[in-house]
Amino acid sequence: MPGMDVRALAFDIFGTVVDWRGSIAEELAGLVADPAGFAHAWRDRYQPSLERVRSGEIGWTKLDDLHRASLDELLAEFGPAELGLPERERLVLAWHRLRPWPDSAAGLERLRGRFVLATLSNGNFGLLVDLTRQAGLRFDCILSAELVRAYKPDSRTYRMVPELLGLRPEQVMLVAAHPYDLRAAAGEGLRTAFVSRPLEWGPGAPPAEPDPSFDVAAEDLLDLADRLGA
Amino acid sequence: MPGMDVRALAFDIFGTVVDWRGSIAEELAGLVADPAGFAHAWRDRYQPSLERVRSGEIGWTKLDDLHRASLDELLAEFGPAELGLPERERLVLAWHRLRPWPDSAAGLERLRGRFVLATLSNGNFGLLVDLTRQAGLRFDCILSAELVRAYKPDSRTYRMVPELLGLRPEQVMLVAAHPYDLRAAAGEGLRTAFVSRPLEWGPGAPPAEPDPSFDVAAEDLLDLADRLGA
Repeated sequence: MPGMDVRALAFDIFGTVVDWRGSIAEELAGLVADPAGFAHAWRDRYQPSLERVRSGEIGWTKLDDLHRASLDELLAEFGPAELGLPERERLVLAWHRLRPWPDSAAGLERLRGRFVLATLSNGNFGLLVDLTRQAGLRFDCILSAELVRAYKPDSRTYRMVPELLGLRPEQVMLVAAHPYDLRAAAGEGLRTAFVSRPLEWGPGAPPAEPDPSFDVAAEDLLDLADRLGA
Repeated sequence: MPGMDVRALAFDIFGTVVDWRGSIAEELAGLVADPAGFAHAWRDRYQPSLERVRSGEIGWTKLDDLHRASLDELLAEFGPAELGLPERERLVLAWHRLRPWPDSAAGLERLRGRFVLATLSNGNFGLLVDLTRQAGLRFDCILSAELVRAYKPDSRTYRMVPELLGLRPEQVMLVAAHPYDLRAAAGEGLRTAFVSRPLEWGPGAPPAEPDPSFDVAAEDLLDLADRLGA
């Protein structure tokens, strides 16, 4: 990319690198009446639950605990309300073993030859360690919102990446499927790479479109490697 | 190990996983009169410089900057005082490319099959990312004193490991060649593995001996893998 001096890529994880929707629906099969609908509803509580932390309504709470509270609410509302504690705990940990999109491992491997690779996710640190181990995804380091006790799109999350890696903001590129995340990163001086993930948005929902202001727009992580010369 | 339920190993890095003494002496060759002596003297300023931070005499300062200050002092004292800025910067970055001990990569690979592997070092975060990339050492995550802005043996550094990984303290084992580090970790409830590194102590100096209280004592990381059944 002419004029850019990117040294490190920071990856959003849920939806960008792994398929939470398909993985969670699969884990719910046999436990709830409509696994795909339940997975969607669980994720629908994600932004509102983060917002309770962002707004200061509740103190710092890691994502595992937010997932658990949403799950309990959903089970009370849609059932089965009698689902036992061990099953609930197992389901919360399903977010630690989400499956990568088919191109993710190979794309990361190519990109890692040229760039330092970090996660930058709202997932708690332990969740990200479990997820990358289990999925065989190789990053050079795990960065989580938990380290700054603030959720994306809080500016502290994006600033952490160049600060910890000893780089300037414009030497770091955020890779994400969600325009709001990329816009916030750009606001802190980071470079931006949009990745289309048409299945991220659910059946019938229109996929996100890249802003013209994003530095790169790619179909998947292999296409991103092509575009970044990796 | 009967009675233990260790899930994660946290590794001290300088001296335990990499050979700072040999690597730094090599980088100093041709620049100073006595490379091995200079390397030793540089490292001799390490604990006193950390102590300035620990005691509050100076605010949080990352290891790269402490290394730079010690280097400037040593060059002023022993010469060559005229060494240029680019050479000084290159020498500070020599700590980012330290060579592993011969058994380190293979030992970590075996241990990673059974345990989550983290670094736990006073090296700054970016130093550890560079070092592990360059040396081909695979950890599941990088943990640095920089994340809690306190240097080992401050209790916050050890407590960070189980907290971030979602484990109990006794499910984490510190692996280190330095008894003071292991004793401090044990004080926070972590398990302890001592690794003999006879070359860590310099020519003529007696190597450290393991305390009988340490949970494991190993010759190197391959021997540690044997002892931990990995």
